[in-house]
Amino acid sequence: MTAHHASKDPGPHPAQVSASARVDAVVDPALPATAARLRAHVLRMTTRVGSGHPTSALSAAELVSALFFQQMRWDPSEPGGRDQDRFLLSKGNATPIFWAALHEAGALDEAPEILCQLDSTLEGHLSPRNPWVPALTGSLGQGLSIVNGMALANRFDGIDARLYCLLSDGECSEGAVWESAQFAAAQNLGAITALVDANGLQQSGPAPTATQPERLAERFRAFGWSAEVIDGHDLHAIVRALRPLDNAQPRALIARTVKGQGVSFLAGADGWHGKALSAEECEAALAEIQAPAQGVHITPRRVPVSPPPAVAPATTNPPTPPDQRGELTATRSGFGTALARAGARCKDLIVLDGDVRHSTKTNDFAAQHPERFIEAGIAEQNMIGTALGLAVSGKRPCVSSFAAFLSRGYDFLRMAANSRPPHLLVVGSHAGVSVGKDRPSQIGLEDIAMFRALDGATLLYPSDAVSAERLTEQALEQPGLTYLRTTRVKTPVLYGPGEPFPIGGSKTLIASEQDRLTLVAAGVAVSEALDAYVQLLESGVPTRVIDAYSIEPLDVETLLRAGRETAGLLVVEDHHLNGGLGDAVAARVGRQTRVFRLGVTGEPHYGTPAQLRRRQRLSNKAIEQAALAMAA
Amino acid sequence: MTAHHASKDPGPHPAQVSASARVDAVVDPALPATAARLRAHVLRMTTRVGSGHPTSALSAAELVSALFFQQMRWDPSEPGGRDQDRFLLSKGNATPIFWAALHEAGALDEAPEILCQLDSTLEGHLSPRNPWVPALTGSLGQGLSIVNGMALANRFDGIDARLYCLLSDGECSEGAVWESAQFAAAQNLGAITALVDANGLQQSGPAPTATQPERLAERFRAFGWSAEVIDGHDLHAIVRALRPLDNAQPRALIARTVKGQGVSFLAGADGWHGKALSAEECEAALAEIQAPAQGVHITPRRVPVSPPPAVAPATTNPPTPPDQRGELTATRSGFGTALARAGARCKDLIVLDGDVRHSTKTNDFAAQHPERFIEAGIAEQNMIGTALGLAVSGKRPCVSSFAAFLSRGYDFLRMAANSRPPHLLVVGSHAGVSVGKDRPSQIGLEDIAMFRALDGATLLYPSDAVSAERLTEQALEQPGLTYLRTTRVKTPVLYGPGEPFPIGGSKTLIASEQDRLTLVAAGVAVSEALDAYVQLLESGVPTRVIDAYSIEPLDVETLLRAGRETAGLLVVEDHHLNGGLGDAVAARVGRQTRVFRLGVTGEPHYGTPAQLRRRQRLSNKAIEQAALAMAA
Repeated sequence: MTAHHASKDPGPHPAQVSASARVDAVVDPALPATAARLRAHVLRMTTRVGSGHPTSALSAAELVSALFFQQMRWDPSEPGGRDQDRFLLSKGNATPIFWAALHEAGALDEAPEILCQLDSTLEGHLSPRNPWVPALTGSLGQGLSIVNGMALANRFDGIDARLYCLLSDGECSEGAVWESAQFAAAQNLGAITALVDANGLQQSGPAPTATQPERLAERFRAFGWSAEVIDGHDLHAIVRALRPLDNAQPRALIARTVKGQGVSFLAGADGWHGKALSAEECEAALAEIQAPAQGVHITPRRVPVSPPPAVAPATTNPPTPPDQRGELTATRSGFGTALARAGARCKDLIVLDGDVRHSTKTNDFAAQHPERFIEAGIAEQNMIGTALGLAVSGKRPCVSSFAAFLSRGYDFLRMAANSRPPHLLVVGSHAGVSVGKDRPSQIGLEDIAMFRALDGATLLYPSDAVSAERLTEQALEQPGLTYLRTTRVKTPVLYGPGEPFPIGGSKTLIASEQDRLTLVAAGVAVSEALDAYVQLLESGVPTRVIDAYSIEPLDVETLLRAGRETAGLLVVEDHHLNGGLGDAVAARVGRQTRVFRLGVTGEPHYGTPAQLRRRQRLSNKAIEQAALAMAA
Repeated sequence: MTAHHASKDPGPHPAQVSASARVDAVVDPALPATAARLRAHVLRMTTRVGSGHPTSALSAAELVSALFFQQMRWDPSEPGGRDQDRFLLSKGNATPIFWAALHEAGALDEAPEILCQLDSTLEGHLSPRNPWVPALTGSLGQGLSIVNGMALANRFDGIDARLYCLLSDGECSEGAVWESAQFAAAQNLGAITALVDANGLQQSGPAPTATQPERLAERFRAFGWSAEVIDGHDLHAIVRALRPLDNAQPRALIARTVKGQGVSFLAGADGWHGKALSAEECEAALAEIQAPAQGVHITPRRVPVSPPPAVAPATTNPPTPPDQRGELTATRSGFGTALARAGARCKDLIVLDGDVRHSTKTNDFAAQHPERFIEAGIAEQNMIGTALGLAVSGKRPCVSSFAAFLSRGYDFLRMAANSRPPHLLVVGSHAGVSVGKDRPSQIGLEDIAMFRALDGATLLYPSDAVSAERLTEQALEQPGLTYLRTTRVKTPVLYGPGEPFPIGGSKTLIASEQDRLTLVAAGVAVSEALDAYVQLLESGVPTRVIDAYSIEPLDVETLLRAGRETAGLLVVEDHHLNGGLGDAVAARVGRQTRVFRLGVTGEPHYGTPAQLRRRQRLSNKAIEQAALAMAA
């Protein structure tokens, strides 16, 4: 986007200036004044609100000016339009410079005066409540993974846009940056440019590469990127480095900058991290900056959109006959079957797996829809961030790994949930000690706790292959972040093929007027509960059995009724005793009825699923004993 | 350790062979036979148990043979002795080769026949239940961080041992590896050698660098290591590359290997990942390997220990006068004060902070005990793993970051908890919406849920600066993993300086026989609850107030009594509604009394602490209203 002072003749329509004509790095003559005005906005905003990281924003003034007011093809009147070049601020502390650029370009409805007021969309860190922000950032090291997903979505849709991600040098200490770097190179995401604002200072002192920004360039190169070090305050150098390349390689520009640049008493000075200036200091700074009173206006541009690449018709396997009741099938297989089938129906469904497709059972989808299957490798953080980038670009991603390894990406899941994506399905397999011989480090025992604490997330935990299929189908339609928990071992099919499984519901499998207590189970524990029911009936204790496949939202009404009609609820789950279904039931219906919990505690062990269930008091025998104690 | 056939003359005592004498890479002539025997052990073990990843183990046979039977100075009769070179297997799938080496050296009490039997310490993945295993591995990408901590502990104690970490090439996709690489180089941990078993195959196909192992060497070099690519089946190349260097740089050896090496039908073949051989296949493989019937015996060696470097006497600040009741002080400050003071008392206390020391308040410790303060940078995963490495080496580490950013390291926390370290304190500051202007991405709302689901973890949440000090002191003495949650905003001092805060206890701040209900609060919510109490008393509803500073273990007895003596408990906390104190109380005492919960839900917002508390129904007014509804 070429910028020019509003008073000047606009000259030839900038959209007509071809990319090649800009190879000589002709800097728009208005850019220095624009950078000064952005600096002034930053200082006024942060001083007014009395917080923020003005010096972290000032170091990026030239980078942001060159992007928004010369390089990027974008339309200030259409927030987040996909046929535009996009910018994502990963170094959240620099947020004021982003609001300043949008304000300067006339792209904000709100004046930056309301920065950080409650309910303003202009928060201290980027939040997707503002329509220019695709996803929440500010937990460092996540931006590049989101941009990976946005770039993939553009490729799927034939949108020839460039994506710019601004990181800090300190941020490159986060390992997630390198997961994302490897992925971008492997996927040939040449549309991505990472700009590293290498001002060399972080909260506690110098950044690890403060004196050697070239080291960062070497790292990006070793991860398959093209990379160069430039002077981040030299607009000519920036514009030259930003010239479009026809290159499948992503590109990193390590911009040597000075924190607080533009103000003599801030530039390079330690002790100013995260501090707003006082009113007097702000005045002094503004006097130095001498921003012109008059800003620029910019002409909207869009990027070309070509028809998406033709896709070979999907290889559809012959439909597998539905599982019959009593047959043994793993819920992960039910998920895999439904996912592959959904691939034919939902053209926006993209599946990402973390090098465990044969275990998680996304391999059927991969075989039938290879163009929409992404092998994300042994790098769960980037996988989740990439899925979020796809989700906020209108795709319907499904992320799959072992439940245990989702803990590797919990910060990414947290930020994804708070980004309120339209649809994002996360599937964790090999959950619980029923995994058995797949060894303790691979057993997911914390995943329900993780997702219950994420606001707005839906949690589903099927007990058999049929409910796994139905819940997968619905999970793909469910708004926001949805977690589906699957099991490694085979369990008996409990339901007929036509059985509905509404989200928020449950299945009362056994009930009579004589029921003395209720077993509430989910997942692999349901079969054990059914076996325990038989034994309890023989012991003269008729028992209700409920399959609580929807943990969030929970079917409180059914549980309350069971509580009224029996002497209490015994919740059984293959998850840590704390944080799971037992807690959910105790918290929601415990005021009306007695709730007991059985779950996993103690040191993890290797063993067969049956051995471990017995040890963890999750076997039918252990359930029976607990129930008898409760009924006594 | 020089290996030789048991039948041979042992020759000169290997401990007398100096490091320099081995520069010419004289390979012990017994090593090829040893490698063959290790391969045979691996195949027999995995076939017998019918599971495991034999091919992932076979590729490392020469590397492991050269380490354990020539290079490493170790004593098979003393598991985990610190004056030995140490080995940590990060690529968990290769576990059988580790058991094989230990067995071959006579270092195991248990025969490898019992691999993977319940209660055997020889599990399918390394577990620290076996004394040769410092910490749980097998969730990929964690080993190097643990080795970082072990190397730091050795440096503190003047132990001149080398540390070897075996990774896979696929594992290097995990960003955590690069966090650890940067840290090791920055800390000049030249004692570390990373061996990357680059067999080029992972579960779903080729590893990202399968055809370019040199790329991995470039990455390590760009992160400050020396690195070279070697033939991982050439014992001469391995021994030459392993020669000791007097170098502050950590060293990476990228060993080109073949998965399944040594058996014609396994070598480099796809489709064998994670599969044990049948009995017939195993016989055929053993026939190819032709391992000699006779093994080697090795002579124990130890490494020199020098007096630890002299440490300048700590700069002790004059003791700060104790906070007076009603004064405003943040709990993070109470923690910081106690931590700095403990530094003088506990010489094994090491503090690690993730570039937020000025916010978390570890800066006092850093100033007074700089030699035991480790700036771990913006890399939380490595920080936690390094702390675990310190913990299992007899140090008393304290890890500090924002509560929100601990979510970045949840997989590391999970593995740390399951490693059952003697002492490991984790402190999360800026918890809850009371953080206010520090923006949503930085607000920890999931941390209590995270730690409650970690088996054996202790959870403490002080409400004022005095209890923060006392609980910090006790947390440092508490066995296992302990989490302390602190708050950013200043809150009134509630307790006198002599007040005790036993772990597992609580403080009943207000109680009378007329109490109609009980407010149970922790942390920042306690002051709000006390304000609500005043208002409720004016409304004619006398209320008990309990400070539940110990969330795990929970003071169930006091809560049960309050439940008996009043009409129910209203739990108030600045954490997500799910997974926190409310769930803990509901699950533990909800059968005996009514439990209501107030906690955070909904989209995170920027705002002042007071605005956010009001919005989240955590203000004293909101508590009052909820209590009145409950009492009605």
